[in-house]
Amino acid sequence: MKTINVAIVGYGVVGNGVAKILEEKRELIRKKSNVDINLKKVFTRNWNKKFPYEIDKSKRVNSIDDILNDEDIDIIVEVVGGIEFPYKLMMEAINKNKNIVTANKALLAEKGKEIFKEAEKKNIRIGFEAAVAGGIPIIKALREGLIANNINKIYGILNGTTNYILTSMYKEGKDFKTALSEAQKEGYAEADPTLDINGTDAAHKIAILSSLAFGGYVDFSKIYKEGIENIDILDIELGKELGYILKLLAIGKAHGEEVEIRVNPTFLPANHPLSKVDGVFNAVMVEGDSVGETMFYGKGAGSLPTASAVVSDIVDIAKSISLNIGREIEITSLNWQHKDLNLTKVKDFFTRYYVRFTVPDITGILAKVATIFAKYNISIAAVIQKEKVLQKYQKNDEKIVPLVILTHTASENSIQKAIKEIEENNLTREKTVLIRVEDEDR
Amino acid sequence: MKTINVAIVGYGVVGNGVAKILEEKRELIRKKSNVDINLKKVFTRNWNKKFPYEIDKSKRVNSIDDILNDEDIDIIVEVVGGIEFPYKLMMEAINKNKNIVTANKALLAEKGKEIFKEAEKKNIRIGFEAAVAGGIPIIKALREGLIANNINKIYGILNGTTNYILTSMYKEGKDFKTALSEAQKEGYAEADPTLDINGTDAAHKIAILSSLAFGGYVDFSKIYKEGIENIDILDIELGKELGYILKLLAIGKAHGEEVEIRVNPTFLPANHPLSKVDGVFNAVMVEGDSVGETMFYGKGAGSLPTASAVVSDIVDIAKSISLNIGREIEITSLNWQHKDLNLTKVKDFFTRYYVRFTVPDITGILAKVATIFAKYNISIAAVIQKEKVLQKYQKNDEKIVPLVILTHTASENSIQKAIKEIEENNLTREKTVLIRVEDEDR
Ligand SMILES: NC(=O)c1ccc[n+]([C@@H]2O[C@H](COP(=O)([O-])OP(=O)(O)OC[C@H]3O[C@@H](n4cnc5c(N)ncnc54)[C@H](OP(=O)(O)O)[C@@H]3O)[C@@H](O)[C@H]2O)c1
Ligand SMILES: NC(=O)c1ccc[n+]([C@@H]2O[C@H](COP(=O)([O-])OP(=O)(O)OC[C@H]3O[C@@H](n4cnc5c(N)ncnc54)[C@H](OP(=O)(O)O)[C@@H]3O)[C@@H](O)[C@H]2O)c1
Repeated sequence: MKTINVAIVGYGVVGNGVAKILEEKRELIRKKSNVDINLKKVFTRNWNKKFPYEIDKSKRVNSIDDILNDEDIDIIVEVVGGIEFPYKLMMEAINKNKNIVTANKALLAEKGKEIFKEAEKKNIRIGFEAAVAGGIPIIKALREGLIANNINKIYGILNGTTNYILTSMYKEGKDFKTALSEAQKEGYAEADPTLDINGTDAAHKIAILSSLAFGGYVDFSKIYKEGIENIDILDIELGKELGYILKLLAIGKAHGEEVEIRVNPTFLPANHPLSKVDGVFNAVMVEGDSVGETMFYGKGAGSLPTASAVVSDIVDIAKSISLNIGREIEITSLNWQHKDLNLTKVKDFFTRYYVRFTVPDITGILAKVATIFAKYNISIAAVIQKEKVLQKYQKNDEKIVPLVILTHTASENSIQKAIKEIEENNLTREKTVLIRVEDEDR
Repeated sequence: MKTINVAIVGYGVVGNGVAKILEEKRELIRKKSNVDINLKKVFTRNWNKKFPYEIDKSKRVNSIDDILNDEDIDIIVEVVGGIEFPYKLMMEAINKNKNIVTANKALLAEKGKEIFKEAEKKNIRIGFEAAVAGGIPIIKALREGLIANNINKIYGILNGTTNYILTSMYKEGKDFKTALSEAQKEGYAEADPTLDINGTDAAHKIAILSSLAFGGYVDFSKIYKEGIENIDILDIELGKELGYILKLLAIGKAHGEEVEIRVNPTFLPANHPLSKVDGVFNAVMVEGDSVGETMFYGKGAGSLPTASAVVSDIVDIAKSISLNIGREIEITSLNWQHKDLNLTKVKDFFTRYYVRFTVPDITGILAKVATIFAKYNISIAAVIQKEKVLQKYQKNDEKIVPLVILTHTASENSIQKAIKEIEENNLTREKTVLIRVEDEDR
């Protein structure tokens, strides 16, 4: 049995988990996979602290070159995070003929094109199962398990922090700020949670999934994204009355030659499988033309769940090294058809909408709003008109109430125009709230 | 690019789906996997009928030897069903150095040991993704995606027919017979549904999953199984009051050197991820020591979903053939540690129980029942004592009512003894109903 040598770069949350699994499960992995994996070296910038998993001093190195120049090292695990340092590291590693396993979705979403191009030239494999949805083997499912499918749609809950916050808003009626600060206290949100909250993290992940699902490179900078920072608990409650649950969904849908990719707060029917995904759990729904609907559910983050995915990549690559095969065995990389995907423009999104107008409580408002919707050919599925006075918007003696319209499928363009016209006609008193709805027309 | 030749044996529901995918998606598969797969021959016993996917006459053969003796054929797809014929076929195929892909769970559960032994000798691969949970790539997840895990527990809804029936009993209050005959009308239950209804089909599947998860061969004949044929709608309703949903679960749990494997109707908390799996859908929950809880959900049967799994196996094997590697790349077969798993005896099951006694409505019954439970050290978590008179059990002027006891975790042995003693003390009027509960003690 051949021994494959691995080095870890970055010794934080994920790095510690990977080291622990590789050392404690060396025998289990040998039994299951017929390869022997030896953790040879670990690099981080500061060894002067305590680690959750203490690695033997003999394996600690203080220079990245100690790894890059070690000819025995077959696989480098990049779990540093960030962009510049790991980008440079990967390019060097590829040029030294080292295979790579990474959990870095930001890097792959933003620089994946260059990295995979280089890797292809050198016949180098890059494993990135851990970059999306932590321990859930969704990358493998897309590349291998569902290979017989054209994927029509892939969507899911890809960020645990925001799902934790939305779950506590929904279940406990907390407002966004309270829910966020509690999530931070519990360790489910970082001190600076910006990239989670504003949808960037989920956008990185759906960029990667869409590349695999639809067969081309996604220009991350063009992905439409909206975070949860402005979600009003009022809309969660009104949505509940319509049978909906609010989730931050990352969505990729094929429309002929175009792909609609977006991250936005989304209303889902309460009986949708993704609606039951609570707290920090992640789940990805894949619709394939052969298999139909499938869902993959599990922990999207955390030391050992993420390391579980990293190690599965290490084993896959180790097997191909020990069998002397290169990346031929790798089905698809991020640019597998060597083309760029065309992203659907926002104005061409085509979905259902929840629109909440903040209107004065006077007769005739609904008629006026409905008339403008009709003008833009937007068909209305349901209306909630409430007695409920919105105290916080009260300015003079005009009573302010919410008016919610749930539409059938419509184009974003028409909706935006209708809202604009309604606002310009002075029918509303606050900015209109628009939330996309993932539900079939009935 | 090498062309790999495939033959299909058996041209029914699954066979038609496989042919359709292989022919219509040849180009897609080539792009994604770098192998070219050619469907060369199809064998079935009767070509004189219409098929959902008509295969070209030139590919139809009338003798299995036409396939076995064709040196160009690399992979045989067995989708005949049954035991004897496919067993003989596989043994011959192995000896002719042909790799095999099968959807036949019955065969693998009952004869897998012999088949895999032979396959190992000859360095032949056997793909069986389609044998469990149809299109859901759960076999690959266990073998590869979750390789860094010791699996503690694997359980799920593995039979669509029974799940369809239980869903309509739960949601529409139908009794078993009505629900079954409707399922038959809708095409969700076969004319002879015995093997689905009595748990045999789910037992075949959990035998296969447990082999992979726990690393040893499972003697199928020793698996404890109970079907849904005797489920009374009354228990579904009483369970609902306790917050439970009834599912036919197939369960494998590791207890040190033993594995508890069973198929039985099971109460699950309504908020458990498996409780939301309705109708013909399947789902498998896997608990790994690194990854935590993961769930895989999708269609467990049907022509194209099942074929999707068959084709993913074909592609995997085709890749290894084209790279000139044998089964070394295959992580685990059904007997991967070449040992037999020790199954926990029924009397040693250790779980929570729902017990419904049918008792006369007189004072003191609960006290007596509770006393006997206490004697056997069974701790009671909840009681439902109902005014509701069970007309159908009424014989004289004694009023008959249900008395439900939900226990904390207890051994099957104690429960059985307690029930026996209660029945022997003439406290009950009908056979006591016992349903195992998959829920944490609180
Ligand atoms: N945490 C998760 O659950 C999770 C899940 C999925 C994916 N990921 C991804 O995995 C990667 C690592 O995440 P993490 O949570 O493990 O991060 P982390 O806990 O912050 O660990 C990063 C490690 O890299 C070291 N490091 C940072 N910059 C360095 C540099 N320039 N030179 C040398 N060492 C450097 C850090 O050292 P110091 O301790 O000295 O700062 C630390 O040891 C990220 O790409 C992240 O997106 C994480
Ligand atoms: N159907 C599903 O959704 C599903 C899902 C997962 C797994 N599976 C498994 O897949 C296998 C096939 O199932 P299926 O639903 O496709 O069965 P099916 O529709 O009954 O097809 C079986 C095919 O094999 C032929 N056949 C049967 N015995 C034969 C013999 N002795 N010699 C030659 N041909 C013979 C049949 O011919 P005739 O038409 O002349 O009888 C028919 O073409 C089974 O092991 C099943 O458990 C099925």
